[in-house]
Amino acid sequence: MPELRKDPITGRWVIISTGRENRPSSYGKYTIESKGGFCPFCEGNEKHTPSELLAYRNGSERDAPGWTLRVVPNKYPALSIEGELVREGEGMFDKMNGIGAHEVVVETPDHALTLATMPPENIKNLLWAYRERVLDLKKDKRFRYILLFKNQGEPAGATLEHSHSQIIALPIVPLLANEELTGARSYFNYKERCVFCDIIMQEKEESSRLIDENNDFLAVSPFAPRFPFEAWILPKKHRAFFEDAESQEYESLSKILKRLLLKMNRGLVVPPYNMIVHSSPFYENTQDFYHWHMEIIPKLTKVAGFEWGTGFYINPTSPEEAAKFLREVQIP
Amino acid sequence: MPELRKDPITGRWVIISTGRENRPSSYGKYTIESKGGFCPFCEGNEKHTPSELLAYRNGSERDAPGWTLRVVPNKYPALSIEGELVREGEGMFDKMNGIGAHEVVVETPDHALTLATMPPENIKNLLWAYRERVLDLKKDKRFRYILLFKNQGEPAGATLEHSHSQIIALPIVPLLANEELTGARSYFNYKERCVFCDIIMQEKEESSRLIDENNDFLAVSPFAPRFPFEAWILPKKHRAFFEDAESQEYESLSKILKRLLLKMNRGLVVPPYNMIVHSSPFYENTQDFYHWHMEIIPKLTKVAGFEWGTGFYINPTSPEEAAKFLREVQIP
Repeated sequence: MPELRKDPITGRWVIISTGRENRPSSYGKYTIESKGGFCPFCEGNEKHTPSELLAYRNGSERDAPGWTLRVVPNKYPALSIEGELVREGEGMFDKMNGIGAHEVVVETPDHALTLATMPPENIKNLLWAYRERVLDLKKDKRFRYILLFKNQGEPAGATLEHSHSQIIALPIVPLLANEELTGARSYFNYKERCVFCDIIMQEKEESSRLIDENNDFLAVSPFAPRFPFEAWILPKKHRAFFEDAESQEYESLSKILKRLLLKMNRGLVVPPYNMIVHSSPFYENTQDFYHWHMEIIPKLTKVAGFEWGTGFYINPTSPEEAAKFLREVQIP
Repeated sequence: MPELRKDPITGRWVIISTGRENRPSSYGKYTIESKGGFCPFCEGNEKHTPSELLAYRNGSERDAPGWTLRVVPNKYPALSIEGELVREGEGMFDKMNGIGAHEVVVETPDHALTLATMPPENIKNLLWAYRERVLDLKKDKRFRYILLFKNQGEPAGATLEHSHSQIIALPIVPLLANEELTGARSYFNYKERCVFCDIIMQEKEESSRLIDENNDFLAVSPFAPRFPFEAWILPKKHRAFFEDAESQEYESLSKILKRLLLKMNRGLVVPPYNMIVHSSPFYENTQDFYHWHMEIIPKLTKVAGFEWGTGFYINPTSPEEAAKFLREVQIP
């Protein structure tokens, strides 16, 4: 049983998840299944994953071929879905058992496609599947936060090549989400405006950090990015929760996301990246001041002692340069 | 001129340091100078580094052979030492010019030695050099925080193979240092005790996370480590500042550090790692509640979307397992 533990100094929680050591790749070099090797996510290999939680199918049977997207429990989950949440002390330390959900979204049956190359309808399906899973997991009152994310490529932490995302539901609100909430709340208390809405306004006006725009979304290089070519996709409509967006917004998002990934693929030569949805925690009154968004972080640099030691990042590329570069990349 | 910029949401500061793109290795694969290639840190090549700020020599001339340790300005600094600190706004955003110091400590003239394999006297010299440089840089009233750190091995972010450390002086207190301070301050306000002193007491008593101990220091696996085999070296004597330790404490530290690195080298087969000294920021009244310490983080796993998205780390090895493993590794 994994454990959640809190560092008594910073308040930082971690998962002690010892069961994960028998993952296919635990330390150091990740053994990526190369093209042609066996892939549990390919069509026809459905029996090699845990049974599906959700699938988009054309009338075919559960856990059989004939689908465009599948969601299955992670075979090597970081958290355990079974059990009651138990909080306890250990001398001066605090801990909690590692209750949570850890799911995998297989984004396409086709091993050769990626988010950048699949049709926008598939991306819209993926966003819709995120939404469906969040709405379902939200019913479980043990969970306070859900993270939707994707590791693309081995340097970004992907252990399987076949295009997939992950969903993790947590019984606590993680540090970074709390930092965002705290910052956005105090901005709202001071200005009575949403900090994200203000960013959208300024970025549209200034346009130097604007990468792309459509009816519902802005793609920008943030003012203070941790990483070169880090990009945020911000919804124009103020909403705290990703899962509350409307169908047409997911369609707009799928289009701007595909364009951004194509630009990165062409301009930065198929970089590995992490994609993360930041949405509000549950059971907090965040409607006024929090604003969901998406972050895409290409993995172009290594994080070293300075960053680990300070939480302070050295970024060799300004967001204005990055945005200009990506704006000018021509895509079909 | 690099810039410091603050994310308006989290309060996280970053350095926009565009001049660094012409480093020998900027993106992706680091080109490590392999043994036998030209090395600017080797004895005889002193003219290939900026002129030294400090050196331990036996009467030999400045920037000439005949030394055991040299401190030089970083040839590709992340921050600029020249200029006045200027804070300004850009619409809703805040920024500051990138004033700071960035120095390199060449730990030995011998290309083949590492911190684990050099004599403990050399390590003591290194710690003493850290202290001398901090005391000197502290005189510059523009600086509020100094980070002492080391990247060992390419996966840990080292760009040169020859054993070296780095010193960065900053005009702001970085996020992680603030988190530690805030946590330690509120613990002190509540308990009127130092949280680090309490950790030392409990770890000695419980001993399950104890790796090693001598008269002045404890080496432990922290209760909630972010990374597998992360280790902290805690001074038994309560002090906010690293540079205030006594000569005999640096000697004890050099011994316990060498033993820890030897154990890691033998047990984990020469892992890349980051070593970081956490000491108090200046100009704050931290004496009562802050307690300097050292963190050693072997780089055994990859950080992926989940960690970047949440600041919440998944660690596959419990600190009790890690400590037991390292305790039992036999070293000469």
